[in-house]
Amino acid sequence: MADRVNRRIVLKSRPAGVPAPADFELGEARVPEPGPGELLIRVIYASVDPAMKGWISTARNYSRPVNLGETMRAITVGEVVASNHPEFAEGDIVTGMPGWQEFALSDGTDVARKVDPAVAPISTALGVLGHTGLTAYFALLDIGRPEATDTVVVSTAAGAVGSVVGQIAKIKGCRTVGLTGSDEKAGFCLNDFGYDAAINYRAATDLGAALAEACPDGVDVYFDNVGGAIADAVLKHLAVGARIVVCGTAATASWDPPPQGPRLERQLLINRARMQGFLIFDYAERFPEGLAQLTAWVREGRIAYREDIVEGLENAPATLVGLYEGRNSGKQLIRVAPGPA
Amino acid sequence: MADRVNRRIVLKSRPAGVPAPADFELGEARVPEPGPGELLIRVIYASVDPAMKGWISTARNYSRPVNLGETMRAITVGEVVASNHPEFAEGDIVTGMPGWQEFALSDGTDVARKVDPAVAPISTALGVLGHTGLTAYFALLDIGRPEATDTVVVSTAAGAVGSVVGQIAKIKGCRTVGLTGSDEKAGFCLNDFGYDAAINYRAATDLGAALAEACPDGVDVYFDNVGGAIADAVLKHLAVGARIVVCGTAATASWDPPPQGPRLERQLLINRARMQGFLIFDYAERFPEGLAQLTAWVREGRIAYREDIVEGLENAPATLVGLYEGRNSGKQLIRVAPGPA
Repeated sequence: MADRVNRRIVLKSRPAGVPAPADFELGEARVPEPGPGELLIRVIYASVDPAMKGWISTARNYSRPVNLGETMRAITVGEVVASNHPEFAEGDIVTGMPGWQEFALSDGTDVARKVDPAVAPISTALGVLGHTGLTAYFALLDIGRPEATDTVVVSTAAGAVGSVVGQIAKIKGCRTVGLTGSDEKAGFCLNDFGYDAAINYRAATDLGAALAEACPDGVDVYFDNVGGAIADAVLKHLAVGARIVVCGTAATASWDPPPQGPRLERQLLINRARMQGFLIFDYAERFPEGLAQLTAWVREGRIAYREDIVEGLENAPATLVGLYEGRNSGKQLIRVAPGPA
Repeated sequence: MADRVNRRIVLKSRPAGVPAPADFELGEARVPEPGPGELLIRVIYASVDPAMKGWISTARNYSRPVNLGETMRAITVGEVVASNHPEFAEGDIVTGMPGWQEFALSDGTDVARKVDPAVAPISTALGVLGHTGLTAYFALLDIGRPEATDTVVVSTAAGAVGSVVGQIAKIKGCRTVGLTGSDEKAGFCLNDFGYDAAINYRAATDLGAALAEACPDGVDVYFDNVGGAIADAVLKHLAVGARIVVCGTAATASWDPPPQGPRLERQLLINRARMQGFLIFDYAERFPEGLAQLTAWVREGRIAYREDIVEGLENAPATLVGLYEGRNSGKQLIRVAPGPA
């Protein structure tokens, strides 16, 4: 492999808020040879996630920022093409954190797990059977704690996380209301993901009135992937004892300085509501439990999923930018190379 | 009693935010005679509470607003002076919700409990052994869930609720940091209530730096009675897994319209923090448990308390206004009439 070129996307400049394609550049390096105890992964699919905006910012976060000149951090699924590691063999499909590049050397510690291509398409290891599905599963069930007859409102309701949240809430017997940014996605909410109601917040002339109509008994669980003005609108409709899952803040371009919004403490107080942040990496020990349940639901046809696959590593930066504009439809992936379905 | 005058304080006008003395007026009525199944209570102490601002506002709250012309709602302790109720006898000391008046008729349903004057001064039934002590107990232990070695920050740290919170946290093995509005109260925090550190936020030139120094490992529990800018400062110092108890919003004069502040969702997300509203009335069934523990701690000398007693029902409105200016020192009470200590 040493004579082959490894293409990768590196961080070139640090944007103040939402990145532009010019903040990244295509770099080339030699494909490395695995040393003792190492394996070489050929990346097949790379994930594009809203959290990436935070990963490239120096604002305090849950992980260190990606350095300038460094390969962009990303979750991927790929094939082991050479291995000197006793636990991995050539042909194994693995998911982990190689980043936006074609080949990655690993000592095995950054491999999250092996993926069985017989269970489902391997791309699902980055979505419904990966970090986004697991996020939906643990954040909704552990933080949101939905009970039958609860009304559960989900933002980015047709997205990779939101669509699974809505379907799990439905499995648990809840009334589900999806907030999304286009009529097409509102259609996906109703037709693909079983929401009881869907609101296109961009088209709603009065989001508050639309929420009041969709949630006549108030909002018991708000699963929030966006924050900002949409969250403000939902928080005016909380039921007593409501739970707000803070899973993402996609609506806010930059947190430096923190933007202003209406103070929340009175809504939390009078409704005895709970608002709690969630990070999937805290649940690593329970991933097997979540994956087993999600896999069963997918195979039983109780959880549907959509994927939006863009061809070519070179398109990753523009695809990321499009994500913040809501241009994707379903879990956003880059196909880096051909591989097993 | 029918020839005696019952003086009472009624709500005269509805303030936009913090009330003025002129929003209330002294009214007079005949002292009523108890009918079948009724008892007559002579009020001895009446409580003055920060929550009263919310009780007289028509903004959505956890209880209906006091009507114009109606006796001001208040928790009191008093003596049964006549009874046709099988469970109450003349001479019983009872606490409940008669309001700011000298005499109150009751059918017994609004009596919270009988008070034993042998256990502690009966005024404590409105403070450390009443709703403020119980608020501290349940809100800290159930919502804040302090663990030994946690750093617990308390606002209005020398107040009726805050002082008990700080002392319970200390009993649980925590490092306690009190925020308060004067050097005198900071002294009470350190000398009377055992805080490890106390910050006069009015005198601090850099509250953030003072918090960083007092909380070198971050804030695990923030027990918040004020909200607003003080809460904003504390929330910049959260530790991972922090709990914020939203117990009061005294710093905000009016919630109509809701004032703006820095958005919180990113702090909650990156710290996987939990922010939750608390209302003591939700815990009525567990009051006996809380009172038993608080009484034991008070009798063992492990919880100290301060009371600020103003003589005369006619001074209740001005005393309430002073409360929002931080003029009180300890649990604010009005002595309405003489009675057993």
